[in-house]
Amino acid sequence: VEQDWETGRIEAFSDGVLAIAITLLVLEIRLPDDTRGHLAHDLRALAPSYAAYALSFLVIGIMWANHHGLFRLIARADEGLLFFNVVLLAGISFLPFPTAVLARALKDGTADDRTAALLLYGGVSVFVAIGYQLVWHYARLRGLLLDGLDPAVIRELTRGFSIGILLYLAAIPLAFVSAAASMAVWAGLALFFLRGTPKPRFTEPGGPPSSRTPAGGV
Amino acid sequence: VEQDWETGRIEAFSDGVLAIAITLLVLEIRLPDDTRGHLAHDLRALAPSYAAYALSFLVIGIMWANHHGLFRLIARADEGLLFFNVVLLAGISFLPFPTAVLARALKDGTADDRTAALLLYGGVSVFVAIGYQLVWHYARLRGLLLDGLDPAVIRELTRGFSIGILLYLAAIPLAFVSAAASMAVWAGLALFFLRGTPKPRFTEPGGPPSSRTPAGGV
Amino acid sequence: VEQDWETGRIEAFSDGVLAIAITLLVLEIRLPDDTRGHLAHDLRALAPSYAAYALSFLVIGIMWANHHGLFRLIARADEGLLFFNVVLLAGISFLPFPTAVLARALKDGTADDRTAALLLYGGVSVFVAIGYQLVWHYARLRGLLLDGLDPAVIRELTRGFSIGILLYLAAIPLAFVSAAASMAVWAGLALFFLRGTPKPRFTEPGGPPSSRTPAGGV
Amino acid sequence: VEQDWETGRIEAFSDGVLAIAITLLVLEIRLPDDTRGHLAHDLRALAPSYAAYALSFLVIGIMWANHHGLFRLIARADEGLLFFNVVLLAGISFLPFPTAVLARALKDGTADDRTAALLLYGGVSVFVAIGYQLVWHYARLRGLLLDGLDPAVIRELTRGFSIGILLYLAAIPLAFVSAAASMAVWAGLALFFLRGTPKPRFTEPGGPPSSRTPAGGV
Repeated sequence: VEQDWETGRIEAFSDGVLAIAITLLVLEIRLPDDTRGHLAHDLRALAPSYAAYALSFLVIGIMWANHHGLFRLIARADEGLLFFNVVLLAGISFLPFPTAVLARALKDGTADDRTAALLLYGGVSVFVAIGYQLVWHYARLRGLLLDGLDPAVIRELTRGFSIGILLYLAAIPLAFVSAAASMAVWAGLALFFLRGTPKPRFTEPGGPPSSRTPAGGV
Repeated sequence: VEQDWETGRIEAFSDGVLAIAITLLVLEIRLPDDTRGHLAHDLRALAPSYAAYALSFLVIGIMWANHHGLFRLIARADEGLLFFNVVLLAGISFLPFPTAVLARALKDGTADDRTAALLLYGGVSVFVAIGYQLVWHYARLRGLLLDGLDPAVIRELTRGFSIGILLYLAAIPLAFVSAAASMAVWAGLALFFLRGTPKPRFTEPGGPPSSRTPAGGV
Repeated sequence: VEQDWETGRIEAFSDGVLAIAITLLVLEIRLPDDTRGHLAHDLRALAPSYAAYALSFLVIGIMWANHHGLFRLIARADEGLLFFNVVLLAGISFLPFPTAVLARALKDGTADDRTAALLLYGGVSVFVAIGYQLVWHYARLRGLLLDGLDPAVIRELTRGFSIGILLYLAAIPLAFVSAAASMAVWAGLALFFLRGTPKPRFTEPGGPPSSRTPAGGV
Repeated sequence: VEQDWETGRIEAFSDGVLAIAITLLVLEIRLPDDTRGHLAHDLRALAPSYAAYALSFLVIGIMWANHHGLFRLIARADEGLLFFNVVLLAGISFLPFPTAVLARALKDGTADDRTAALLLYGGVSVFVAIGYQLVWHYARLRGLLLDGLDPAVIRELTRGFSIGILLYLAAIPLAFVSAAASMAVWAGLALFFLRGTPKPRFTEPGGPPSSRTPAGGV
């Protein structure tokens, strides 16, 4: 009699990781060493840091919502799912670094610096989008989803994730054009993803009760 | 058959974010590089950092309690609530930065520096108060509250939040007068808010059992 | 019909805060800027940082166990308990700072620096011990404990906490004598407290079931 | 009537600590102070930091999975288990430091520096492996495991942990040979451990229901 991994504890661990990644963003906002007599000016000069903070907070917040939405459809876990989830979390937890790099490039970088920072940020975003794909398709192909899940839900999520990754890739060349446009597109993509995960629906009305219990229990 | 977002996982994520924001405050207390032979003196010179730490720990601790009190009244969640909650969390998670700025201005800033730091702290506090309003009124207007909730509870919370935001706004001009007065008023406002969230009460004695289950389950 | 605060969410928030405080300790271990060619030597020179890390990890780990043990006896919460719990958490979350100060004083401080660092560490420990007392006696006097709790358990915990605070106070003068002795005594006190919280026992065998449910549910 | 420690809250606290340790890794990736005009180059020069981040994220992620797998077999806890779990967590939470040291040695260290950094990383890994052994054998010898657990499961885990510690020890001499080989072996060992914890199986089909409840409840 073998017990599957509980998705509940994977979700709790992921929640913890994402809650920390989102909160660490503030540590990257730093004043210069000497602010005596011109603190107001120095605080205004940090405007790019505030913008990068707001962008990444929104992005990670919505990534959390997507992670939650994704795992609502998964009933069981195995070592492979665990591994791909760690890969996904590694991508999201990395975001405070490109956020800090972006803020710095916006503040006092050259045009080339800004492009480099935007490419890094975009690259990490694409890595995260791939991470979602890996978790999703692994769970789908290994039969770890909720039993009796409506195939339309599965198609909907597959399509949503595929569009998402294409949009992220399409946004990358903007790095050579404009920082403001890149950041606006990323914020827009985050908001787009806010609606991206379909709710569980079942082929039979109400769905088989046995299959929904493991996903509901946290 | 659609499932709503569970408020339980939103609360757990918010708890995580607030627990981290409150704990990061200590990282902003930093000694100068060279303390050899005069560490006791250097530790005493950090008194403003300790005061700012105590103030912000109290403020975030009570913000957590209010967040908890607010979500006790909310039964369901949707993407909009998720979004406004992320906005609210972004405000609270930002507080370690104005806390560090305030400590620095108190330690070795000019009068103008202190005013700038106090305005920043007050502005972020008002932003957070607005965040609470957004979450609350969104949930209220979208019918996400507990079914059968006593309208007096709703009025009480609306009034409490409105008074709170007015008091925060009224405290801002103190930034031009006195740092100690501003900080004392903020601490006082935090304590005022400790009593600010009414407990759930229902129009029928005991309330409809079905409506209370989703909020009670964590 | 009013609902009490659930102790479950207070415990979860406290767990989060303590988990973060204990993990932040590692951030205070820092190499000098230039280690090229003599990294092995520089790593050995950090021995006081490793000792301070081990001490504080043990101390906070056992403080967590005590917090857990304490809240096992508490059935209900109100705003006052919330407030005193925030005060207690503020003390524990502060510990990474005196830990870093202690490591620095051990590494390259004078005898006076070491005494100052030890007094700070001891003072914060006493503050934490007082915080436990405040939470405990507040809960006891306001009738927030489990119903039907054996009075012997209450006396046992009151005595344990009182002895603890006396031992912490008694250890403070060691700061003027020896850093190693102070640290050994603090580690010993932490281990002493590992056994410090009595398990819930009830006056009637098994205790009233209704009273035990709120404490058991997390 | 005494209540045992609940393993649920120990697991939740451990989850929190590991989630934070894994997320702090990103804070150790730092750009030089001046990057203006050559940010792309400076970002590429951080390649060793990215590699160390990826390695440690994988290592801690799988350590979390092992911690989870281990505690699935444990039904009860006492103060001793609590203590050894704190020792284990202290080892894992320390990993951001050797990760940063390793990245620095790879970036601009001499051959001796690299060996020192690899020995530190390997030493901490062995410490963690010993921590797992302490928790496991303590729980086993004190009768804290699930009742009716199949002895084959116990032998399997004991053998897995013993092989693991031997492999970690055997990998240490690689520090004198090659950094890349050491890191590849550690990543391989992490993946090996991904399969290392057997699922609970019971001597009677299905196992005694009473014994499985405490482990299942989080």
